[in-house]
Amino acid sequence: MSENVPPEQDHDHESLTSPLLSRQHRSTNSTSQVAVVGVNLCPIESLDYEIAENDFFKQDWRTRGKIQIFQYIFMKWLLCFMIGGIVSLVGFCNNLAVENIAGVKFVVTSNMMLAGRHEMAFLVFFLSNLGLTLFAAIITAFIAPAAAGSGIPEVKAYLNGVDAPGIISLRTCIVKIMGSISAVSSSLLVGKAGPMVHTVGACIASLLGQGGSRKYGLTWKWLRFFKNDRDRRDLVTCGSAAGIAAAFRAPVGGVLFALEEMASWWTSGLLWRAFFTTVVVAIILRALIDVCLSGKCGLFGKGGLIMFDVYSANISYHIADVPPVLVLGVVGGIFGSLYNFLLDKVLRVYSIINERSIAYKIFIACAISGFTSCLLFGLPWLASCQPCPLDTAEACPTIGRSGNYKKFQCPPGHYNDLASLIFNTNDDAIRNLFSRNTDSEFQHSTMLIFFVTCFILSIVSSGVVAPAGLFVPVIVTGASYGRFVGMILDSHTNLNHGFYAVLGAASFLGGSMRMTVSLCVIILELTNNLLLLPMIMMVLLVSKTVADTFNGNIYDLIMKAKGFPYLEAHAEPYMRLLTVADVVSGPLQLCHGIEKVGNIVHILKTTSHHGFPVIDEPPHSESPVLYGLILRAHLITLLKKRSFSRTPVRIGVEAFQHFSADEFAKKGLGNVDRIEDINLTDEEMEMFLDLHPFTNASPYTAVETMSLAKASTLFRELGLRHLLVIPKTSNRTPVVGILTRHDFMAEHVLGLHPILVNSKWKRLRFELPPLLKVF
Amino acid sequence: MSENVPPEQDHDHESLTSPLLSRQHRSTNSTSQVAVVGVNLCPIESLDYEIAENDFFKQDWRTRGKIQIFQYIFMKWLLCFMIGGIVSLVGFCNNLAVENIAGVKFVVTSNMMLAGRHEMAFLVFFLSNLGLTLFAAIITAFIAPAAAGSGIPEVKAYLNGVDAPGIISLRTCIVKIMGSISAVSSSLLVGKAGPMVHTVGACIASLLGQGGSRKYGLTWKWLRFFKNDRDRRDLVTCGSAAGIAAAFRAPVGGVLFALEEMASWWTSGLLWRAFFTTVVVAIILRALIDVCLSGKCGLFGKGGLIMFDVYSANISYHIADVPPVLVLGVVGGIFGSLYNFLLDKVLRVYSIINERSIAYKIFIACAISGFTSCLLFGLPWLASCQPCPLDTAEACPTIGRSGNYKKFQCPPGHYNDLASLIFNTNDDAIRNLFSRNTDSEFQHSTMLIFFVTCFILSIVSSGVVAPAGLFVPVIVTGASYGRFVGMILDSHTNLNHGFYAVLGAASFLGGSMRMTVSLCVIILELTNNLLLLPMIMMVLLVSKTVADTFNGNIYDLIMKAKGFPYLEAHAEPYMRLLTVADVVSGPLQLCHGIEKVGNIVHILKTTSHHGFPVIDEPPHSESPVLYGLILRAHLITLLKKRSFSRTPVRIGVEAFQHFSADEFAKKGLGNVDRIEDINLTDEEMEMFLDLHPFTNASPYTAVETMSLAKASTLFRELGLRHLLVIPKTSNRTPVVGILTRHDFMAEHVLGLHPILVNSKWKRLRFELPPLLKVF
Repeated sequence: MSENVPPEQDHDHESLTSPLLSRQHRSTNSTSQVAVVGVNLCPIESLDYEIAENDFFKQDWRTRGKIQIFQYIFMKWLLCFMIGGIVSLVGFCNNLAVENIAGVKFVVTSNMMLAGRHEMAFLVFFLSNLGLTLFAAIITAFIAPAAAGSGIPEVKAYLNGVDAPGIISLRTCIVKIMGSISAVSSSLLVGKAGPMVHTVGACIASLLGQGGSRKYGLTWKWLRFFKNDRDRRDLVTCGSAAGIAAAFRAPVGGVLFALEEMASWWTSGLLWRAFFTTVVVAIILRALIDVCLSGKCGLFGKGGLIMFDVYSANISYHIADVPPVLVLGVVGGIFGSLYNFLLDKVLRVYSIINERSIAYKIFIACAISGFTSCLLFGLPWLASCQPCPLDTAEACPTIGRSGNYKKFQCPPGHYNDLASLIFNTNDDAIRNLFSRNTDSEFQHSTMLIFFVTCFILSIVSSGVVAPAGLFVPVIVTGASYGRFVGMILDSHTNLNHGFYAVLGAASFLGGSMRMTVSLCVIILELTNNLLLLPMIMMVLLVSKTVADTFNGNIYDLIMKAKGFPYLEAHAEPYMRLLTVADVVSGPLQLCHGIEKVGNIVHILKTTSHHGFPVIDEPPHSESPVLYGLILRAHLITLLKKRSFSRTPVRIGVEAFQHFSADEFAKKGLGNVDRIEDINLTDEEMEMFLDLHPFTNASPYTAVETMSLAKASTLFRELGLRHLLVIPKTSNRTPVVGILTRHDFMAEHVLGLHPILVNSKWKRLRFELPPLLKVF
Repeated sequence: MSENVPPEQDHDHESLTSPLLSRQHRSTNSTSQVAVVGVNLCPIESLDYEIAENDFFKQDWRTRGKIQIFQYIFMKWLLCFMIGGIVSLVGFCNNLAVENIAGVKFVVTSNMMLAGRHEMAFLVFFLSNLGLTLFAAIITAFIAPAAAGSGIPEVKAYLNGVDAPGIISLRTCIVKIMGSISAVSSSLLVGKAGPMVHTVGACIASLLGQGGSRKYGLTWKWLRFFKNDRDRRDLVTCGSAAGIAAAFRAPVGGVLFALEEMASWWTSGLLWRAFFTTVVVAIILRALIDVCLSGKCGLFGKGGLIMFDVYSANISYHIADVPPVLVLGVVGGIFGSLYNFLLDKVLRVYSIINERSIAYKIFIACAISGFTSCLLFGLPWLASCQPCPLDTAEACPTIGRSGNYKKFQCPPGHYNDLASLIFNTNDDAIRNLFSRNTDSEFQHSTMLIFFVTCFILSIVSSGVVAPAGLFVPVIVTGASYGRFVGMILDSHTNLNHGFYAVLGAASFLGGSMRMTVSLCVIILELTNNLLLLPMIMMVLLVSKTVADTFNGNIYDLIMKAKGFPYLEAHAEPYMRLLTVADVVSGPLQLCHGIEKVGNIVHILKTTSHHGFPVIDEPPHSESPVLYGLILRAHLITLLKKRSFSRTPVRIGVEAFQHFSADEFAKKGLGNVDRIEDINLTDEEMEMFLDLHPFTNASPYTAVETMSLAKASTLFRELGLRHLLVIPKTSNRTPVVGILTRHDFMAEHVLGLHPILVNSKWKRLRFELPPLLKVF
């Protein structure tokens, strides 16, 4: 074991609190890459995907009948079906509400503008936006602070095994839905996809899996098989696929998004279930759209399944179009990484302000809403009025809420092209930007103003204390940038401006989100333009490559800022030069195979570890032997049951009669038993407990000379929470330490080995951009 | 260690030969699920994805400079680029050659038919088909027998860690390209996608990765970093994605196919590289198609990027269309699983005949070609001639090679609808089946005859000794089935027959291949019909679910028939009830840390193991200690070098001076050093070798009481070749056995524990269809 362990790290190598992390970072990490946004004093817990194969589990497994197995399989599919159904309904209602609330707002203000009552229109616009934002901010700040922001980083961390408090609960879910609707309606430049993935996807999936929220008495007894981290993880993965599928009506894109960006573990069975979930979403959405076709959805209109249809049967582009598109990709990549950089910085600043008090949070939200309203209402006055084209099929100026030709302040027969973009819902703005045969509609200055406005607004709006996704802002900003490039090239290219807007959106998405296949399919499903596919693929590739030379993807940056101990898929190069013994910390808390109750209580009360090695010593064995690993939760269950024996003897199968498998299942959220709640008499404290039947007798182990890289691979690939370290030689204690998630974090390792900090290995870790990572 | 190990299994727990496997199966497996197709006396080798972290490797790792790391990263991308480039060129030339060869054949015969010279036309048709088939069969049988069949099961097994002999070599590659062109041109109902994945994808990727074929002197010295199984696996994965991308011009579908069906291990970095590879394919294909637009590609025509475009802006389907489509999916699933069942049986029968001699193989190929020619030429005579429609834009009867209205034997002004489908290339038949606004073109009887013909021909043609893919036959068969259903429903549905053909193809693909997301995207990219997506998703889901209740997917069935020891992603339920000690076999061959040369030679000559535990014993250590694992290949390298010492002493870093990292890199194909080729003098045999610096000092281990399920997860997730089993107590030898891939095979485990064979666990293993697998 290493000698240079700082004393404060001896304890608590399992429960990671954000402040702890931040303390370490301050001491060890001079690159200031890590800070803590949204400090939270509740511990971030790790999840455990290992099956605790103790005798009790094996007994239960052996006796499981076919009926129970069928029940399990049936329930799995039923849960996926329910997730798909609920998500599609929530997603549809979300869209419906947003379109109607924002629609009414724009119709009322547009009518006032038509009537020349400009001040009144501004007042209505300003106040309705402020009211909606205030509502979103208040419910988020007071009821569920975890509902703020996109939610995708939190769900991504959850799927990696990091359980941040409050992320998944019924309360967060409801606030996120309500808050998202009012924030998006309030003309803030925030998206709906992230909240959709978080709430309706992850929260609903997890709540269904644990059988509803026990807090509110909504539990189903027949879900006991799903009360473990593994099955819950799978359901949350399906849920996040469904979330994207519902937000963008992109079922295949949803599955791929969950696969490429969200999930850390993936199996073919899970792929199939995620696919099933999104099929349910697709079919229900399709049926609901059928309902809207008959005009029953108010201002939602009669939109089809494809949100921004740009189909064109006769796209012709040739080799000459490739260089400008490449340049578009390169610049998009640079803007995308700049966007990530600024967003990260802004979120950190906000979080410092937000920490002070709830009043500050709400004030910021109101200020941003006011700023946005002023910009949106003020900027169109800068644009000159355009005469309506004569050959258009649409009404000009636009009557009603949507359409390309907003009149705004212009005289009859004219339209304001900036207002068409800016004084509109985000979806309609995207639709206008993507539209074909509108090459003469917009002016250069308009597009430039719109791009800059979107770039700024999308960055400042993201830190607001309300549910706020990133997808739509990035698409709007990218589309305006792309269309601007298209307008500059104009006569030098075969593609019309609408296609440049699509490519621009792709380049911005690639530069910010850094996905490949999933973005490709999402764009395809959003725009229905297969012929453009090679171009979109190329743009995504170029912009991701360029952006990766500067920084990481936006979700990873936010996760890092929030201090989540995310386990990367690959070990870092310097880890090959360290052994497990170099990082493992002690002293170790051990249990004996037959342990005094008092000792167990003492260990549980004085440590916060979640797993303890169990040792058999003479006279119970010939020499000290590692029997296995017992979990804190199981020890507490045993103590609660109070079936102790007066003498230190091994009990066999009769121990199982007192327990049902349900008692060892992972508890739902918010009702974990605590050792402090168990009161034992002095007499009981002197009695004994045979831990053998409840100890995982074959935990995964690493020998102390194993390289940290190999141990890290083992830990990550198998989804462990504890990895026991055993000695190389047999004449020592049979276990020398436990590795947890925390021990593999670069900050921890480099804190213990400062010599690496200035070595080339550290540089390879921190200075190399994602593009040049060895793996 | 288990006591009941059959003696013949004591040896060779690593090199699996097919005959060995088959012997075991006969003795232990009464369900006859396993037999051996294509017996091959060369051993099937396992691949090793573990990094052998010995001192030498660490030294090499520590001294790797930034330049080498950049070199490595650059080479990785360059190789992907080259794979993409070569694959797209080969794929394009393949298509070009097929279209031109088959085109000329059909033009010549059609012209003869027009001129009334029916017998002459038949003779030309028959002989040209026979000649082409004969050519394919002869080069396959004599030059590269491994090139026969689809190749996808072999590549899938390779990516799982099973290296069947001859699968990946330059010779196989060339034969597969030539053979595929002539087999597809010869009107056999075989596909081009499988051969494309195998040859151009996997073979080219692997050959590039190992720096060309050393056999033919085509090596590049600067590829040493890629001479290991891990990097080669990644390149082959990218190659197979490129193969599908080139075969179907479906770049995204290719990535997803490789991800969902082919790869056993997958990382986000690999996803990105696979995406990059297919972007290269897409762009080069797009550019080549630009060339063809100017009419320089002969009979290839001016086909766009989308092979079977069925775009329709106004698809309207409603809830009433769902039930018939569901039924289509159910029946498609049943037919698909029946197809798999029959194909599996037919392949087994062929393999028994094929084993006899090459003459038999060639005779079968000729017989099938003759049978196909007779059917294709004879069946159209059964169809009645239809009068040409008056309102068609196309010429009727068709002039030239393609088009919907083949005249065949009909009088002027009439066409033969069966000939339009049957007397055509497969691609044109699919195009006709998918086409819109042709609802009145085909008769019910025609479609039924065509479906039955395709079903039979695709099954009998697959066993031919020539490259033969399965994708296109399944699509043709499915499309004809779907169109037939559409014709029956006709007035009861809103969808036209062409869409039913697409859905039918989807249902058949789902029922046979059992993929979800990747098939969905491939069909989307083939047909360019996004609005139909929810329907296609639903059909795929239903047909896969139905088919999974009967048997496994076609590639898995073929892999099983070929006896590949494929490791499933999940442990089987009964494995939780066994421990590692229950299956590990002995006696064990050990090396000492400092070993006599003679002993090493003896061990290498008398066993066929590929890894040996290295033990330190007193006086070199206090008690016997497991030092690590040394590989056979490394031992042979050490022996070849002959730097022995006369006394048993440990040597340190000076040992490295004699070696370069290149010498320990995995050798390319066909030039593995053998122990028999090393001749040592008697004096050398008495000298000593210090193995410590070359021993992997931290191999993954499993304690003997670990459940087989957990050991299996460890083995599979980490991609191991050897898993050392260590004792629970410390007073025994420090290692009790080695587990290899073979030890986790159900046949092996159930052979050792016949009691499980009749337990419910065995039934859960063998009798439950894939649908009801617990995981």
